[in-house]
Amino acid sequence: MAQRNRKTASTGRSAKSRGSAGAGDDTAIIALKLPPGELSSDMAAYFRKCEEKLGFVPNVLKAYAFDTAKLSAFVAMYNDLMLAPSGLSKLEREMIAVAVSSYNRCYYCLVAHGAGVRQLSGDPVLGELMAMNYRAARLSPRERAMLDFAVKLSAEPWLVEEEDRARLRRAGFSDRDIWDIGAVASFFNMSNRMAFASDMRPNSVYHGQGR
Amino acid sequence: MAQRNRKTASTGRSAKSRGSAGAGDDTAIIALKLPPGELSSDMAAYFRKCEEKLGFVPNVLKAYAFDTAKLSAFVAMYNDLMLAPSGLSKLEREMIAVAVSSYNRCYYCLVAHGAGVRQLSGDPVLGELMAMNYRAARLSPRERAMLDFAVKLSAEPWLVEEEDRARLRRAGFSDRDIWDIGAVASFFNMSNRMAFASDMRPNSVYHGQGR
Amino acid sequence: MAQRNRKTASTGRSAKSRGSAGAGDDTAIIALKLPPGELSSDMAAYFRKCEEKLGFVPNVLKAYAFDTAKLSAFVAMYNDLMLAPSGLSKLEREMIAVAVSSYNRCYYCLVAHGAGVRQLSGDPVLGELMAMNYRAARLSPRERAMLDFAVKLSAEPWLVEEEDRARLRRAGFSDRDIWDIGAVASFFNMSNRMAFASDMRPNSVYHGQGR
Amino acid sequence: MAQRNRKTASTGRSAKSRGSAGAGDDTAIIALKLPPGELSSDMAAYFRKCEEKLGFVPNVLKAYAFDTAKLSAFVAMYNDLMLAPSGLSKLEREMIAVAVSSYNRCYYCLVAHGAGVRQLSGDPVLGELMAMNYRAARLSPRERAMLDFAVKLSAEPWLVEEEDRARLRRAGFSDRDIWDIGAVASFFNMSNRMAFASDMRPNSVYHGQGR
Amino acid sequence: MAQRNRKTASTGRSAKSRGSAGAGDDTAIIALKLPPGELSSDMAAYFRKCEEKLGFVPNVLKAYAFDTAKLSAFVAMYNDLMLAPSGLSKLEREMIAVAVSSYNRCYYCLVAHGAGVRQLSGDPVLGELMAMNYRAARLSPRERAMLDFAVKLSAEPWLVEEEDRARLRRAGFSDRDIWDIGAVASFFNMSNRMAFASDMRPNSVYHGQGR
Amino acid sequence: MAQRNRKTASTGRSAKSRGSAGAGDDTAIIALKLPPGELSSDMAAYFRKCEEKLGFVPNVLKAYAFDTAKLSAFVAMYNDLMLAPSGLSKLEREMIAVAVSSYNRCYYCLVAHGAGVRQLSGDPVLGELMAMNYRAARLSPRERAMLDFAVKLSAEPWLVEEEDRARLRRAGFSDRDIWDIGAVASFFNMSNRMAFASDMRPNSVYHGQGR
Repeated sequence: MAQRNRKTASTGRSAKSRGSAGAGDDTAIIALKLPPGELSSDMAAYFRKCEEKLGFVPNVLKAYAFDTAKLSAFVAMYNDLMLAPSGLSKLEREMIAVAVSSYNRCYYCLVAHGAGVRQLSGDPVLGELMAMNYRAARLSPRERAMLDFAVKLSAEPWLVEEEDRARLRRAGFSDRDIWDIGAVASFFNMSNRMAFASDMRPNSVYHGQGR
Repeated sequence: MAQRNRKTASTGRSAKSRGSAGAGDDTAIIALKLPPGELSSDMAAYFRKCEEKLGFVPNVLKAYAFDTAKLSAFVAMYNDLMLAPSGLSKLEREMIAVAVSSYNRCYYCLVAHGAGVRQLSGDPVLGELMAMNYRAARLSPRERAMLDFAVKLSAEPWLVEEEDRARLRRAGFSDRDIWDIGAVASFFNMSNRMAFASDMRPNSVYHGQGR
Repeated sequence: MAQRNRKTASTGRSAKSRGSAGAGDDTAIIALKLPPGELSSDMAAYFRKCEEKLGFVPNVLKAYAFDTAKLSAFVAMYNDLMLAPSGLSKLEREMIAVAVSSYNRCYYCLVAHGAGVRQLSGDPVLGELMAMNYRAARLSPRERAMLDFAVKLSAEPWLVEEEDRARLRRAGFSDRDIWDIGAVASFFNMSNRMAFASDMRPNSVYHGQGR
Repeated sequence: MAQRNRKTASTGRSAKSRGSAGAGDDTAIIALKLPPGELSSDMAAYFRKCEEKLGFVPNVLKAYAFDTAKLSAFVAMYNDLMLAPSGLSKLEREMIAVAVSSYNRCYYCLVAHGAGVRQLSGDPVLGELMAMNYRAARLSPRERAMLDFAVKLSAEPWLVEEEDRARLRRAGFSDRDIWDIGAVASFFNMSNRMAFASDMRPNSVYHGQGR
Repeated sequence: MAQRNRKTASTGRSAKSRGSAGAGDDTAIIALKLPPGELSSDMAAYFRKCEEKLGFVPNVLKAYAFDTAKLSAFVAMYNDLMLAPSGLSKLEREMIAVAVSSYNRCYYCLVAHGAGVRQLSGDPVLGELMAMNYRAARLSPRERAMLDFAVKLSAEPWLVEEEDRARLRRAGFSDRDIWDIGAVASFFNMSNRMAFASDMRPNSVYHGQGR
Repeated sequence: MAQRNRKTASTGRSAKSRGSAGAGDDTAIIALKLPPGELSSDMAAYFRKCEEKLGFVPNVLKAYAFDTAKLSAFVAMYNDLMLAPSGLSKLEREMIAVAVSSYNRCYYCLVAHGAGVRQLSGDPVLGELMAMNYRAARLSPRERAMLDFAVKLSAEPWLVEEEDRARLRRAGFSDRDIWDIGAVASFFNMSNRMAFASDMRPNSVYHGQGR
């Protein structure tokens, strides 16, 4: 219904004259000037592996690279949470990541993990829905219970009690699954905040992935 | 960093086995069963014009079509606000629409007007940023002031006072512009809520537009 | 229990020396200086009808009168919502208007539609209760369900889901009624915000109506 | 603009058929069944004085009357706060009472003290504005500063700090005045909550006072 | 896990070089300069009794002492609520005091009444839990229901309705008990706010009591 | 002012008859039944070091011990953040931990890190104030700015922008310090949520430390 002809903008301002709202995202990764550090050989290898497999090093890693010990700790925790064996599929973990990041309105994580959901699911609309309002998505009861828990834990952690765990159990999750749902949701509550504290910007390549 | 190979999902669940999270968006437009109504000739003509220009009738119009008087009033107000001459460009009006809909987390309007921002600006990242968190976008002071007003008016209207209008004037807006910013923001606070009240679903074609 | 004798105010300040808190409400209708516009003949006729039937033109209409197209769209939508046939009585629609405006603390709409509730119901206390806290009113289960939905839609629209519609159906509302409850509540979420954006002031005549 | 003819309600439901929304307010004062107690002679005399001066005993006093010690403590604190000498006029104290009660949406106190503001000020619109949204009232800077403090103390007491007191001093208030503003606002935060805990209902006579 | 050796602080700043975060709490009791007043003989006797029984006069009493009428009203209400016969034990009343003060984050009342809970219960951990998050405490259903009501009444009094009272009745409370729970919770909503309005500081002796 | 004699509780209920509110904290560490795992030799050594240095293994480590990879990642990140060289003293990092945990009302972290603040500062009142309301503490401008940033990042991360970083710089913090403040605050936003997700209980020994 919105009219789609760029040339007719009533004020005569050329829409094209404005720079991109994401200008600099690939070069000015964070708003903090940190003294450059040297990568350990492990981390240097990990960066090469990212280049090979993804075609780029995610900006969050470049942001942490000023201190290889911090980078290393972050990578270890991230990879364990998102990639190690779990009762949650990788897609489910990415769905949690995006739903939490949507609650927190985190640009970096919504872009990077929205792409993850689109790619792992092959359903671009699922990626949009996780970023916009997971309640509007057509989800299984299992998925809905998982995201309700993750978002409550993000929004009002002080209200999470035994009944919330019981609800997950009734949806078929094991206690170990509950740990994992909690851990992924908690991790992105950390990661979202690091992105806000430092104004972290996502690699622009993510925007087009999985569309 | 998220691993991108769908086949390796650790639990063996096939990501493909789930239906799309937006399944039915083009057919079950709202969750209310409303007795079908007859379009006035004006509205019938308007629908044909949508088909010609956009290739489809936006679902919000189909939703209102059960009562041609309601549809007609909605279309008149919408077109005046979004397309009539104004000190605000059409893109600016769409940016307000999306920033307000982001505050309210409205699936319908984020999808439909996110596409509008992408198309009018030619900057897909701008569309994403309006939907995710407008504060993270690289905006002109004018744009930022406009969106700050629109979002405050959405979130805490009872706190909007003369100082808020003064801030807009300092950013270069006329009193008529202030009316228009207020009117677009207010309209989407209505429209978002109609979408929630009826579970309105966006035409799936929007998802790919302007990427 | 409060002492009622104005003369004994302990500080000796004369209560009368202050101007009315609503001074100027009838003359300085909004805080925006808008270039005057010309009314279409339809709208001019509508204003005359207001004068005849109500004895005055509501300030909201005078506010919109700077642009007869905007005025006309507003009037069409308003009259359809509040006066056209519906499963909701006119009083019920006014009750929604006031309960929503109370949530948003909108001076203009509380005054104008508070008067509406008092007049349509013949129960001045109902008007007060809608403006103060609808939960304290002695309401039928139907009325309570209707207002709970309207206020949730105002406060946290992102949480309105199928269960909320189901609750209305259990209270006896049809799907068309649900649309109408949603539409009236949504409209006043727009209208309240226009009042805040422009500092709209109600005609002082409303204050005494229906007492 | 709202149509004022009760007979034309579109659904044919007679507006008159519903009981008043305040039915029982004068007889079923609270929703707790408390064993009746005996008034001390002091309190009995105080009740007689209320009857003489006001024409009725405020329901809050009748509610406390089940325990004359509690009643007596309440009356002592109330009368000291609202009637004893202070740098705040009695009207100012009532304005605080209503603005706080509006924040808390307390039916009892809005009705009883809204009447107080109307009567002490001789400005019925001031009473309405305190109950609806004090920010929309035409107030002196002194009044505005006083109410801003009182409402912040009600809404987010944990954020009240030295700068808030400094703002009051800049508006001309002494340290003793600040104590009094704080004390009246704090008292109504107590009183509002007692009204909610017990569902306290105001004497219906208040509704018409000072109109 | 936190390292406990003060000498190793990495920056070399001596932790000891900073003054105590509670410096002046025993001498500069409030941040308002109030003209000193004279105690009535009753209040003077009460202060002596405090010295004898507690070893000190609580700072809240010293704060009110600038006006013996205000002090007297405060003491009468406080002693009735916290010490007079009631279906609630004194410990239960102190638990409400601390849970409410925790919601409001009131330094004065958390310190003074946290000590009260520790002493009356002989369970220092109970004092900590009331101050930190009562939901994490191992409580009886009666205690939990009591605190849920008190905290809801503090946080969102406008949502307290008959169902909340019914829940207390189901937990075994009488209507008189409900009044008392409401009254204690309401009183601390007043008292907390007086502490914020005046920056009231607790006697430092409380910190070590009941550990 | 609260009466301190346990024997006089008015209802005759023996306060001693209730179990401790922290009963089981040392044995039932979390509310999830997780299959026991085997510690790596590194982690086993780390546990022994905890026993030697602290006299106990913090429950959070025991909770993670079901999976030595998760434990190891957690320990690496924790130790880097809290103990590695930084422009923030160890005490400052513990203060952030407690202020964030107070915002989130996290029992585990308030107890464990409250003890940390008391021990590192030698000022037990500082520990209380961080847990109750850091705004009431006598802090240096540097400390206050640091905690304001940490708590805003916890409460409304979406509002953290360049001006917030600028405020830290004006308070003397370097960009690297800002990263560290953000990182510690973000970490505890994760850790608090893991505690809520699993109902993690602190070692009871913490309660008495540093008093």
